[in-house]
Amino acid sequence: MNNILSFFQESSERVEHFLDNRLINSSVFTAKLNEGMRYSLFAGGKRLRPALVYASYGLFSDDYDYVTPFAAAIEVLHTYSLIHDDLPAMDNDDMRRGKPSNHVAFGEAEAILAGDALLTKAFEIMSDYTCAPNIPADIRVKAIYKLALAAGDLGMVGGQFADINAEGKKPTVELVEYIHKNKTSALIECAVYLGAVAGGANDKQLENLISFGKYAGLAFQVVDDILDITSSSDVLGKNVQKDINSHKATYPAVYSLEGAKSKAEQYIHKACRSLDSFGDKAETLLSIAKFITERKS
Amino acid sequence: MNNILSFFQESSERVEHFLDNRLINSSVFTAKLNEGMRYSLFAGGKRLRPALVYASYGLFSDDYDYVTPFAAAIEVLHTYSLIHDDLPAMDNDDMRRGKPSNHVAFGEAEAILAGDALLTKAFEIMSDYTCAPNIPADIRVKAIYKLALAAGDLGMVGGQFADINAEGKKPTVELVEYIHKNKTSALIECAVYLGAVAGGANDKQLENLISFGKYAGLAFQVVDDILDITSSSDVLGKNVQKDINSHKATYPAVYSLEGAKSKAEQYIHKACRSLDSFGDKAETLLSIAKFITERKS
Repeated sequence: MNNILSFFQESSERVEHFLDNRLINSSVFTAKLNEGMRYSLFAGGKRLRPALVYASYGLFSDDYDYVTPFAAAIEVLHTYSLIHDDLPAMDNDDMRRGKPSNHVAFGEAEAILAGDALLTKAFEIMSDYTCAPNIPADIRVKAIYKLALAAGDLGMVGGQFADINAEGKKPTVELVEYIHKNKTSALIECAVYLGAVAGGANDKQLENLISFGKYAGLAFQVVDDILDITSSSDVLGKNVQKDINSHKATYPAVYSLEGAKSKAEQYIHKACRSLDSFGDKAETLLSIAKFITERKS
Repeated sequence: MNNILSFFQESSERVEHFLDNRLINSSVFTAKLNEGMRYSLFAGGKRLRPALVYASYGLFSDDYDYVTPFAAAIEVLHTYSLIHDDLPAMDNDDMRRGKPSNHVAFGEAEAILAGDALLTKAFEIMSDYTCAPNIPADIRVKAIYKLALAAGDLGMVGGQFADINAEGKKPTVELVEYIHKNKTSALIECAVYLGAVAGGANDKQLENLISFGKYAGLAFQVVDDILDITSSSDVLGKNVQKDINSHKATYPAVYSLEGAKSKAEQYIHKACRSLDSFGDKAETLLSIAKFITERKS
């Protein structure tokens, strides 16, 4: 466990160093926009998605700086989604990672724009030849395409839309699985893909790694749903039991708490089996999978 | 004028045909999201940005289908910006192009997500090898980078942020110029760039076309400000005099109406001079510049 925590730490440092240099304000008229973007970007968090980019890439190379733009871009995109999810018109959460949500700290219009700017920044970073100029253009285009698919109406935004529209209705298994697959798993799968495609994975390797990402992502969301019920506000840094109170579509709501725990284990098992062909080299990815199931926040 | 109107018409048809096939709903849970995205995408509008992509590309080739993904992507991105600009927390406009705004028709959370999905869709289209597979990857990466810069915190979102934050304050020339350059001109300049880079423009040609786009974009916004004062709600399809009433940062507010008219002429003159080296081949771009200054809506 110590090893994987230091891997997370190193991943965070690489990405934060990159982003600290990248998120530069260009005008006196946008100083507060820049501040709002940085407020949410540097609010801590596990940096799970960058860690997955690095761990996946690590199967092929240990030159981690090479893939840092991809790791940073997906964290920037994830941060936008948290800001928009918290908005009053959406989940209306006033706390995030133990701090006031972006719109509470900066205002609603400002939070919408900070989110829009971060979403756009992700693609700016992915396509910037001046950072990591060695990544070939065709790899970049594939990576950008996958990121856009994972993040848009056919992925994360679709999942969030289904989630918002499900509130107050009795959730079905189909709905919960749609939401988890798209709202959470799509981007986690994409993180693993970005590392793999940058590392030069062949088709079979890509397929296995995508399968790992998909099931690890599903497990992550089931565990999130479980923690929302079993954990306390202090540990989680956000309002707990909110999902249950608002009749949100969660795994425990359709499978019971015990059923959800068993589902999380099944998913993690499938995730880990997808890595069999990589042998010992997959140790870091396997440790991240273990971390996902055993985390307390 | 008839020629340029039919050029706009043909540009619209190409882009709408492409987008009609592209904006496919994938799930029963996101049918309304898809509907919301299409509602704003197919709400009419001049399709100025696609026309500029085609006209700029037309300097190099008449195989317009080749560049359609770029033309469609920038229109999709422009549409997202209109949806988010109209939100209650932003400009709070309940009418757009003579119809209820997206959030009035679909709800606020739904409109935020439709905007997010369209912004992401623009990059999905730009990076999709299955549409216009002939565009080389390095051209795509350059085009995506330019689009992201033009649209994000260093471009359009920055301009919108400055605009929102300026309300109620006495506008300065610096502020108005910052807003116009970033909120409007950046994306129009980008449209011209996308056509040029897809067409294989050399550095000098790119420089001239970027200059054209920049000044044409500035003229477009000054004319918009002027129309807001002089036109009627029927012609414009949105609430007029809103900008003046809310003390928004506009050209007429800092330069007077006559001063703004003269500024628009100066900008268009600079735009047209940038095309001198293209001679007669620039006829379509010049006609679009003329259209921008002479339009009534």
